[in-house]
Amino acid sequence: MHQMWGGRFSAAPEESFSQLNRSLPVDHRLWPQDIRGSKAWVRALAQAGILTPGEEQMLRDGLDRVARRLADGAGTGAPDEDVHTLVERLLYEEIGDLAGKLHTGRSRNDQVATDLRLWCLTALEQVDRELAGLGAALVAQAEKGMDLILPGYTHGQQAQPVRWAYVLLAHAWPLVRDRERLADAARRTAVLPLGSGALAGSGVPVDRDLLREELGFRAISPNALDATGERDFVVEIVFALALLLMHVSRLAGELVTYSSTEFGFVRLADGYCTGSSLMPQKRNPDVFELARVKVARTLGDLVGLLTALKGLPAGYSKDLQEDKAFLFDAVDTVLLTLPAVRGGVATMEPVAERMNAALQRGLLATDLADGLVAQGVPFREAHVLVGRLVQEAERLRVDLAAVPPEAARAIHGSLPALLASLGSFAESVERRATPGGSARASVLAQLSELAAAFRA
Amino acid sequence: MHQMWGGRFSAAPEESFSQLNRSLPVDHRLWPQDIRGSKAWVRALAQAGILTPGEEQMLRDGLDRVARRLADGAGTGAPDEDVHTLVERLLYEEIGDLAGKLHTGRSRNDQVATDLRLWCLTALEQVDRELAGLGAALVAQAEKGMDLILPGYTHGQQAQPVRWAYVLLAHAWPLVRDRERLADAARRTAVLPLGSGALAGSGVPVDRDLLREELGFRAISPNALDATGERDFVVEIVFALALLLMHVSRLAGELVTYSSTEFGFVRLADGYCTGSSLMPQKRNPDVFELARVKVARTLGDLVGLLTALKGLPAGYSKDLQEDKAFLFDAVDTVLLTLPAVRGGVATMEPVAERMNAALQRGLLATDLADGLVAQGVPFREAHVLVGRLVQEAERLRVDLAAVPPEAARAIHGSLPALLASLGSFAESVERRATPGGSARASVLAQLSELAAAFRA
Amino acid sequence: MHQMWGGRFSAAPEESFSQLNRSLPVDHRLWPQDIRGSKAWVRALAQAGILTPGEEQMLRDGLDRVARRLADGAGTGAPDEDVHTLVERLLYEEIGDLAGKLHTGRSRNDQVATDLRLWCLTALEQVDRELAGLGAALVAQAEKGMDLILPGYTHGQQAQPVRWAYVLLAHAWPLVRDRERLADAARRTAVLPLGSGALAGSGVPVDRDLLREELGFRAISPNALDATGERDFVVEIVFALALLLMHVSRLAGELVTYSSTEFGFVRLADGYCTGSSLMPQKRNPDVFELARVKVARTLGDLVGLLTALKGLPAGYSKDLQEDKAFLFDAVDTVLLTLPAVRGGVATMEPVAERMNAALQRGLLATDLADGLVAQGVPFREAHVLVGRLVQEAERLRVDLAAVPPEAARAIHGSLPALLASLGSFAESVERRATPGGSARASVLAQLSELAAAFRA
Amino acid sequence: MHQMWGGRFSAAPEESFSQLNRSLPVDHRLWPQDIRGSKAWVRALAQAGILTPGEEQMLRDGLDRVARRLADGAGTGAPDEDVHTLVERLLYEEIGDLAGKLHTGRSRNDQVATDLRLWCLTALEQVDRELAGLGAALVAQAEKGMDLILPGYTHGQQAQPVRWAYVLLAHAWPLVRDRERLADAARRTAVLPLGSGALAGSGVPVDRDLLREELGFRAISPNALDATGERDFVVEIVFALALLLMHVSRLAGELVTYSSTEFGFVRLADGYCTGSSLMPQKRNPDVFELARVKVARTLGDLVGLLTALKGLPAGYSKDLQEDKAFLFDAVDTVLLTLPAVRGGVATMEPVAERMNAALQRGLLATDLADGLVAQGVPFREAHVLVGRLVQEAERLRVDLAAVPPEAARAIHGSLPALLASLGSFAESVERRATPGGSARASVLAQLSELAAAFRA
Repeated sequence: MHQMWGGRFSAAPEESFSQLNRSLPVDHRLWPQDIRGSKAWVRALAQAGILTPGEEQMLRDGLDRVARRLADGAGTGAPDEDVHTLVERLLYEEIGDLAGKLHTGRSRNDQVATDLRLWCLTALEQVDRELAGLGAALVAQAEKGMDLILPGYTHGQQAQPVRWAYVLLAHAWPLVRDRERLADAARRTAVLPLGSGALAGSGVPVDRDLLREELGFRAISPNALDATGERDFVVEIVFALALLLMHVSRLAGELVTYSSTEFGFVRLADGYCTGSSLMPQKRNPDVFELARVKVARTLGDLVGLLTALKGLPAGYSKDLQEDKAFLFDAVDTVLLTLPAVRGGVATMEPVAERMNAALQRGLLATDLADGLVAQGVPFREAHVLVGRLVQEAERLRVDLAAVPPEAARAIHGSLPALLASLGSFAESVERRATPGGSARASVLAQLSELAAAFRA
Repeated sequence: MHQMWGGRFSAAPEESFSQLNRSLPVDHRLWPQDIRGSKAWVRALAQAGILTPGEEQMLRDGLDRVARRLADGAGTGAPDEDVHTLVERLLYEEIGDLAGKLHTGRSRNDQVATDLRLWCLTALEQVDRELAGLGAALVAQAEKGMDLILPGYTHGQQAQPVRWAYVLLAHAWPLVRDRERLADAARRTAVLPLGSGALAGSGVPVDRDLLREELGFRAISPNALDATGERDFVVEIVFALALLLMHVSRLAGELVTYSSTEFGFVRLADGYCTGSSLMPQKRNPDVFELARVKVARTLGDLVGLLTALKGLPAGYSKDLQEDKAFLFDAVDTVLLTLPAVRGGVATMEPVAERMNAALQRGLLATDLADGLVAQGVPFREAHVLVGRLVQEAERLRVDLAAVPPEAARAIHGSLPALLASLGSFAESVERRATPGGSARASVLAQLSELAAAFRA
Repeated sequence: MHQMWGGRFSAAPEESFSQLNRSLPVDHRLWPQDIRGSKAWVRALAQAGILTPGEEQMLRDGLDRVARRLADGAGTGAPDEDVHTLVERLLYEEIGDLAGKLHTGRSRNDQVATDLRLWCLTALEQVDRELAGLGAALVAQAEKGMDLILPGYTHGQQAQPVRWAYVLLAHAWPLVRDRERLADAARRTAVLPLGSGALAGSGVPVDRDLLREELGFRAISPNALDATGERDFVVEIVFALALLLMHVSRLAGELVTYSSTEFGFVRLADGYCTGSSLMPQKRNPDVFELARVKVARTLGDLVGLLTALKGLPAGYSKDLQEDKAFLFDAVDTVLLTLPAVRGGVATMEPVAERMNAALQRGLLATDLADGLVAQGVPFREAHVLVGRLVQEAERLRVDLAAVPPEAARAIHGSLPALLASLGSFAESVERRATPGGSARASVLAQLSELAAAFRA
Repeated sequence: MHQMWGGRFSAAPEESFSQLNRSLPVDHRLWPQDIRGSKAWVRALAQAGILTPGEEQMLRDGLDRVARRLADGAGTGAPDEDVHTLVERLLYEEIGDLAGKLHTGRSRNDQVATDLRLWCLTALEQVDRELAGLGAALVAQAEKGMDLILPGYTHGQQAQPVRWAYVLLAHAWPLVRDRERLADAARRTAVLPLGSGALAGSGVPVDRDLLREELGFRAISPNALDATGERDFVVEIVFALALLLMHVSRLAGELVTYSSTEFGFVRLADGYCTGSSLMPQKRNPDVFELARVKVARTLGDLVGLLTALKGLPAGYSKDLQEDKAFLFDAVDTVLLTLPAVRGGVATMEPVAERMNAALQRGLLATDLADGLVAQGVPFREAHVLVGRLVQEAERLRVDLAAVPPEAARAIHGSLPALLASLGSFAESVERRATPGGSARASVLAQLSELAAAFRA
């Protein structure tokens, strides 16, 4: 069995330890990054005079052949310790002893940090694209829902009437922030560790700036002990993914509620529901239930990562190997969830008549208070007066607008007139016309800004 | 494609949703439990008069054939939604339309809860066995280490001399508590959900007590809405596993320290170390570094589980499907870690000369204070006096015992004599003779109790 | 400033360090336990011949006087490092130099572990009492709600009709399990650390069994290094509290949904709601929103605790000091939440007409399928046929029972007759008569078992 | 009792609910922000024509008087529901009924979000200042430690020699990243929610851009439902603090190790240690033990926050009230920890002779392999050969450099000469001269960059 170490050892790893120690089942997917990093390293070694041009060519060609074999599945079920050993073993198979020069001046410590950062940068692009896709689906639904009015809720209780478009966009804006955070994380990820050696810098005078350019990084790491032993970029990415899925959980939770029989505001497409094995009538909003729960996975990953790193000294400790299980799980979870949610959102249908039917007159209570304020009543007092009116309506078990004028007048002289001129829910929506409000102009402005933001 | 629902649907699941929704990649390993539960269910249906004896026989035979096919890999790469659908589909393949009678009066909600509890009970036994194995390895090392004295530490600083056996046993006792907690969890897991239907009980008058007995449960669940919608047993098991691995992380962390060049108290076997790809001299305590970090995985799983469950209504929600990813990861992590740690502990060798060399005279300061107490000095004052002696020794840069008599006498008249009769580190160990202490008698008693506890 | 150490130090703690280091602001509430433990220790020292009977009496009297001063507020704003130093300082003030004998053979390490276990045992009793109170409130509501039928839900969708009592009891059973877990935790907490010294046992031959008896513990700790350095009991208690509040979050979340305008199944009492500062009509279910969120606090505490302990060597490290902040926060949170939730549950009113109005005929689909099964149709086929009927009803936009006979017959010949004899929702409930189901007999049995469990 | 709601209620909050519901004990510290936000709101109301210039003046003066009373302790023990109610009540006391006009067009939902963002911006500045302080202390120590060589570690094992300055700077660079993350968080925090009303925008046409400018925000929130119901900025800040304290835990953990008797690389100042109540010789590195554990608090806070938010619908739910407990705990923890760690770092003293004594010849094994590479041996082969030499040295129980020439030659012909010219540890350090390495030039460059970064 090929090993990247072992000269000083008298015994091979015991089976139980090998099971625990081998990372190939997890890190095998880093092979494209490992090849790419190794090809850049070969170039740097050649520039530093460690390899002849001929050796450089043979090594790079060999790595290309290894890449083709891996793309064809040569890594499946491979017995190697990790992806780096796998690649080195295959390279020996391709080009013989010259393969032994590849690792000159390099350590798996700076190698894996480089592979992982390359992998993350690609993953961040994929996530960003999927996020934009979900955002665009929300915007598209919102465009169709501009004229649908439904109750807006706080505390799970009807609060003020709002546009359906507005509610959807309230779930789109967090995605804009998520993309900013992902971009910030990408900026901090694009720092090259290669050339850091095991902990103290490389013994070969490679040109790290050339490596940086060849691998597309933004900067080079300033301290090798830090560069090989830190995983801040992984933690930050997993955090950004957890926060992102928290947003998705809120959207999804709200849509589960809205798809209940009792609310009935949206109807999901068949293709995003499942039935029951027992109850023939069931049509369950599984896509949004699953989208609601997935934040739990990424939160678990985040906790695991930070716990793993707690208290470690600077520099590489084997504990860091665990980082990939958390990172890959978080990225996979997000990339599994977002397309399904986008599909669920894109295909659901709002049910205007149920939204309409749900609107209770109490949603206009603030307008009544504002009406009293317009007549000079201090708001706090107006609030109390309308509160009494609401109480009276409940006592009489009538709609707010149906409180008899004399009863209303007993509370405040202007109330009967205000009640008489209360207007529609749509008019009420237009009354909240500050930027960011639910009035048409604000929602149109939001739509236009978000449509641009999510256009890729 | 076989489905357990769909009569009322006009469209099949969309691809992105299907990816998110399918649990077979995770829950396929429940097939033995699913078969076992289904066979019991068939018996109960027959007893309730729903199936004829002939149908019962055919269904049970069919399920046995399905089990054999699954054992032979029939589930690999299967396209089904989940393990229950897979089993039902194969049963149709084996016995035709009669398979359609299996699910009478049952729901996947009570079915999966039953499968999962059966799986957990087996997993708990395995974990318990591995824990006992690690405990026995610690006891075996302790038996050999009875006469090795080393510094005992608090705050990472030398505190009082102790036996090597005693330190090892301090890490064995937590495993005893872990096993108690696992047993408590098993007791609460052994409650049968089958017969709960989807949420409200089964429409078929099955004898749940017969099911309980056939499946080896301790009790039957008292409320079907609770039984199908709760995952307390999973949470409790994952918690017990996280706490268990926290104990392992403490043992492992201490052994990483002791295997450093600077401490050098233990030497690991080659079979539990790896080297460096760059530095030829390296011999890293990977087994204990990995054992130190694994608690992070289970803590992440625990957080994920509790977050998943937070705020859900009673009864089954699809969010519950996520439970298995957390549970399986936690159990797998523990079963991967414990055998390797046991091997690492069993094969490591204590290094008596390094332990000996590390013992500093300051470790006997408490004995000095106790000596003053024996002469009537209140302990708090004795503590101050010996503290001054320590300070004096540091000022003079000498060993505590080498403080000149006149300087010691200036602090307290009895100190020179006490210093002269200070005795050995082994004698000091014997002075702490309360039950549970590091003196020989206590450690022997612990050894004997623990040896019995960890004997299979 | 009184200190329990310092003889060997040349400088006092710096201000910034002292701020970080002082635990008195957190641990001051342990004073009753600290006094109690110290009085027992005095007795043990006397029995061991370390104190004369006269000294014993003076020390115990002195401690009583210190207790009275602390009960009168002597600890408020005290400058001491921790509660142990505070008590020792006050004891010096009361009885002079004899106070210096109190700490003979003891360490703050075994002292604080003892104090904390005593505190936990009391806290567990309080929590248990409050849990029983909440359980009793649920039972009382359930007794009144036996005849109220409402939709039962899975996936947030109407599934089968159930009794209101049954739903409430589904939230009561988890509390029974919580109490079992708390009792298990209490059993493991009731182990005496006192007499363990700092790490290696006490240098004084105290009778630990006498201490155990005097302080009401069940057993004595078997290894002093373990006893002073482990906090398993704290972790286990905080876990049990987190799981408990997870249950409360599920109850609360469901009640928030049921108190919405759209569901309207329960109406909270005014005394458990608040209004809005802006919207006069609002009446928010704050008690259940807050009860829903509080699990987050205890989950945070649990994560913090396990993270704090990860990787520490055996024996005391200062990191352990952090345990109390987590423990106290978790206990306080639970003791703040449970009484309010109990009150909210006890005073809410079910709204029978809204429950009734919500019942959709689709809830009887399983009964229809069972009807086909009774005629020999395999259940899986019956499920498909009723699914088609549901689809037909939706296509026609009619109630399930209103599908024209010819259309029903086209699906299956028996369906028209089955539809005609479908019966009431209450009859459907009675059809699920397995133990644990929603039928009257099962619910009555549950009520009686739970009423007994929560009495006391 | 003054309330901001209640007109429609017939009963006051019950005691148990009031205990749970009141946030004043936590949010009272927001009063300066609440006053500041209210004064800006008054101005905006006046500009919108809702208040006359006279009313504006009276309200702003009244708020100033309220601020003075609160600065003098008027909030201590106040019975109010929250800080907003407290301020409004005091304003009524100061200026009478006109106070009732303050809340026109505003909700506590946009108010508290504004207060909280203002508070966070100040807190972020404080944290940033303290971080720079810790960074500067590391740099100052590093400047003194440029010529101290000690073993560098990976896996807790000696790896290659490095400069003490270099190790310290490896812990300083993460703080640079932390400050970037805090700045990113601050940018996203500086978005004004005020003018969002309760959920749908304000009913008063206030100029939100004027509010933004007056309160020093960067932008205005684009959707009121999002603005009042999201706490991303809190989550992001708490995450950044948790990651920051994770870095501190790594620094602290390493220093605890280095301050052990066995390593002995640093000696802490007396003012940052404590002693033992039992063992007179103890001198514990408490400052770094506590600094190691504090990440647990902030990780718990982060988990709590994300769990609290999971699954909530858009807009305000009472669950959000819990945000402040997490945020304040995290900020307080950081502001308590950083000054003490800075002090501990600034005053500790490196112990050159112990660092020197710890250097083992094996640290030069990589140099030997590099020597073979210089002679044309492929690195992988050179690694094996030096590994054999290490093994031989261990077998002979001699220093690597003391392996007899014939034995070395048997492994590879060049080894005796390479061993003879192995050079000093300092020379070895200089051999790793890539940017970011431990060689003098790189460390000087790092020092200069970091000194500038941490200069206030």
